[in-house]
Amino acid sequence: MSMSVVESPQQAGKGTKYEEIARQVLDLIESGTFGPGDRISSVRDMSHQMRVSVTTVLQAYRLLENKGHIEARPQSGYYVRARVAPKVAPPEMSRPRMRPAVVSLGQFLVRMMNDMRDTSLMHLGAAVPNPDLVPTEKLNRSIGSMSRRYRTLSNSYDMPPGCELLRVQIAQRSLVAGCTLSPQDIVTTCGAQEAISIALRATCKPGDIVALESPTFYGHLQSAEAMGLRVVEVPTCPTEGISIPAVRELISRHRISAFLVVTNFSNPLGCSLDEERKRELVELLARHEIPLIEDDIYGDLAWDGKRPSVAKTYDRKGLVLLCSSFSKTLAPGYRVGWIVPGRYQSEVTRLKVLTNIATPTLPQLAVADFLANGGYDHHLRRITRLYAHATTAMGDAVAESFPMGTRVTAPRGGFVLWVEAPKGVDTLKLYEGAIAAGFSFAPGVIFAAGDRYRNCLRLSASFWSPRARDCIRKLGRMVAEQMVG
Amino acid sequence: MSMSVVESPQQAGKGTKYEEIARQVLDLIESGTFGPGDRISSVRDMSHQMRVSVTTVLQAYRLLENKGHIEARPQSGYYVRARVAPKVAPPEMSRPRMRPAVVSLGQFLVRMMNDMRDTSLMHLGAAVPNPDLVPTEKLNRSIGSMSRRYRTLSNSYDMPPGCELLRVQIAQRSLVAGCTLSPQDIVTTCGAQEAISIALRATCKPGDIVALESPTFYGHLQSAEAMGLRVVEVPTCPTEGISIPAVRELISRHRISAFLVVTNFSNPLGCSLDEERKRELVELLARHEIPLIEDDIYGDLAWDGKRPSVAKTYDRKGLVLLCSSFSKTLAPGYRVGWIVPGRYQSEVTRLKVLTNIATPTLPQLAVADFLANGGYDHHLRRITRLYAHATTAMGDAVAESFPMGTRVTAPRGGFVLWVEAPKGVDTLKLYEGAIAAGFSFAPGVIFAAGDRYRNCLRLSASFWSPRARDCIRKLGRMVAEQMVG
Repeated sequence: MSMSVVESPQQAGKGTKYEEIARQVLDLIESGTFGPGDRISSVRDMSHQMRVSVTTVLQAYRLLENKGHIEARPQSGYYVRARVAPKVAPPEMSRPRMRPAVVSLGQFLVRMMNDMRDTSLMHLGAAVPNPDLVPTEKLNRSIGSMSRRYRTLSNSYDMPPGCELLRVQIAQRSLVAGCTLSPQDIVTTCGAQEAISIALRATCKPGDIVALESPTFYGHLQSAEAMGLRVVEVPTCPTEGISIPAVRELISRHRISAFLVVTNFSNPLGCSLDEERKRELVELLARHEIPLIEDDIYGDLAWDGKRPSVAKTYDRKGLVLLCSSFSKTLAPGYRVGWIVPGRYQSEVTRLKVLTNIATPTLPQLAVADFLANGGYDHHLRRITRLYAHATTAMGDAVAESFPMGTRVTAPRGGFVLWVEAPKGVDTLKLYEGAIAAGFSFAPGVIFAAGDRYRNCLRLSASFWSPRARDCIRKLGRMVAEQMVG
Repeated sequence: MSMSVVESPQQAGKGTKYEEIARQVLDLIESGTFGPGDRISSVRDMSHQMRVSVTTVLQAYRLLENKGHIEARPQSGYYVRARVAPKVAPPEMSRPRMRPAVVSLGQFLVRMMNDMRDTSLMHLGAAVPNPDLVPTEKLNRSIGSMSRRYRTLSNSYDMPPGCELLRVQIAQRSLVAGCTLSPQDIVTTCGAQEAISIALRATCKPGDIVALESPTFYGHLQSAEAMGLRVVEVPTCPTEGISIPAVRELISRHRISAFLVVTNFSNPLGCSLDEERKRELVELLARHEIPLIEDDIYGDLAWDGKRPSVAKTYDRKGLVLLCSSFSKTLAPGYRVGWIVPGRYQSEVTRLKVLTNIATPTLPQLAVADFLANGGYDHHLRRITRLYAHATTAMGDAVAESFPMGTRVTAPRGGFVLWVEAPKGVDTLKLYEGAIAAGFSFAPGVIFAAGDRYRNCLRLSASFWSPRARDCIRKLGRMVAEQMVG
């Protein structure tokens, strides 16, 4: 940016002044007073507060903007940018062996699930939304009004494909994700886990091979295990997602019955496939007639407010089974999800009936009402700003507290982080100590079928707080002590 | 009954009088003014209405009681007895071949499911409760109050075993079914179908054999099919339930991984195993370490108000997986069910998480509140009286409208009837004609794995009405015409 006015001595003085103002604002950002996504004081307010001219503040803000610290949003003001470059590097591309394996995670997951019910613990690893960031009261009011409006319907079996009001809303919202769906394309489910479980059953039979990212959500590995499937884990880049060349190589080597990929702000890596890679993945699998089960539950949680597309956008053959839910954004306890099953629609419908006949009616009606009238977009803007702040701050805390050589992901959406401690660290062995110290986390080994990621762990920033920061510091010390001991 | 007073000529006159009163009351019963389970006017009221003495009414009532038309209930009054002897005989014991078979019901069930969504049709075959006989408004009010009382909890993941308030209520109610369960023994599910589906997955693996009654609920056959199980159908008596000698023989011949039995007011036969047979079945299977999946969804719908026991009562080895729900009594649209998995608890919990993480929270809280405060027992008395009346009337209509040689079950609970038309009738072929005539029913073939029960059909009396009576008449004519043509 260049100013067109000729600099006078006074203006040169202002030049020094605006740099000083910029320095002060940067201090506020670095100390956390203004977090990523926060709007900083308006030019007018700042001018008033700092007792300098509007022009000086404007120059200071433009300096900060040029340096990438803040960004101007038209008609809105200046905002702290989500930090792009983390203080430590992200982990490198994973290198699993791409051989079919049987999942066997043993009893640890049962233990971890039980610990999650303990409300006295600080849960640093649970990828569940913060209860204060879901619109529970508004949704519960929707339940009340919908139950009065649909007296009989609200307590009747809502046979698949499920609640039409909800399917209309989902179809309308699919436009921002690049899809043109009709309500008839959608089958509602009890959350995304049910959608994915049904998608696996619709596309694979026991003994088949399903391919996943590495690391991947342990629930996906468990679902595959429960169905008697073998899994192949595909090299995945923590910033760019599943490796397309590796997918190509895998297809040439093995007969894969389905790919299961978290396309946006994946769990645990937080990365997304860009448009080009989504298109490439869909076209590559389509050429081999391999179905893609797409898990998009974090897609609405883009920190920059730009909803990424879904891979389903590029589906020409009905081979993409898009699965999602409102559990991360609106209503974990309502269990409302859906699947867009493409050519597997009749089989998915049949399996849904056999799973539990129908999805509960009232929760679907309430979510439909919220989507139609509750200000979902406004809600998303609010929570993504907070999750951006919390996740970035948590990443910073890891960078400060963990030993040198630790790497951490730098997601642009969602609220999970993947931490790679130096080689030799065994996070599973730290679990007991963490519980004794009053907190839990998700050890890396549960995110792979084989014995991988012992030195890794997943964190969730949804409950970020001073107490959580203390726990991260403790965890960092425990890692360091393990390396020494 | 003998009167101790010496008869005077006047009293002899009263003797004639009380027979006349008895005749008039019987007319009211036979015309349907008082249906089975209805309380008839009190002795005092009747004396007033008929302008006869209390003694005369008492004599008339005792005459009707002796003849089996009414029954006295202490502290309550006189009630019309559920008709024990139907006008036509029930079907005889089924005789399936007891050979393992693969289920393959083809596309007909998909067609039938779609037809069930058509609200213009009269659904004579759908075993769903009448929306007017479920306490929807009360439950919806419970949702409102529970969501206020449990603000955060109501929209949080309710991880298995699920809602404790609900499990406490279920455990308390299990006492009337002969069980002493603790809340820790119970895992909540999205309806009984989910419980049964999970129970099958916990006890069998693909290729295994599961044994069922014959005929049996098509959903059970479908669940077995979807899991890659083979089924063996066991001879079942339409009044006494699954044949224990046949079970014994089957066990000696084949390796059975699980039995799946509807123990009370079964679907479609409406029969129950008596106490002795329940005990025998549980002990017989226990000797061979074979799990029993017990489906008890109709158990609360005993017409005489006497809740039958569950087979779980006799379970000493943790081999009975009791499955049930509130879908037939309270809340089909809420999808609240449960399983008591015995020794399979950890596997069932794991499979529940993989199915859909958790059961929706608010519907469970609402059902718990209704059970604690809503007058469930009073509700059951009201609806069982109406279902008794409707089902008996529907059976009568079948007896009147169907050709000679037709047999129909005489259940003592629930609301379904199983009709066996004369040999040669093909009810599947009548289905199209029924749809064209504005109603649907459930053809017998879908209640077996092999090609059986072509001359049978299931009816549901939950929507009994003059229009339903007309449809039964039409269906009777269609059966008769098929026999002639």
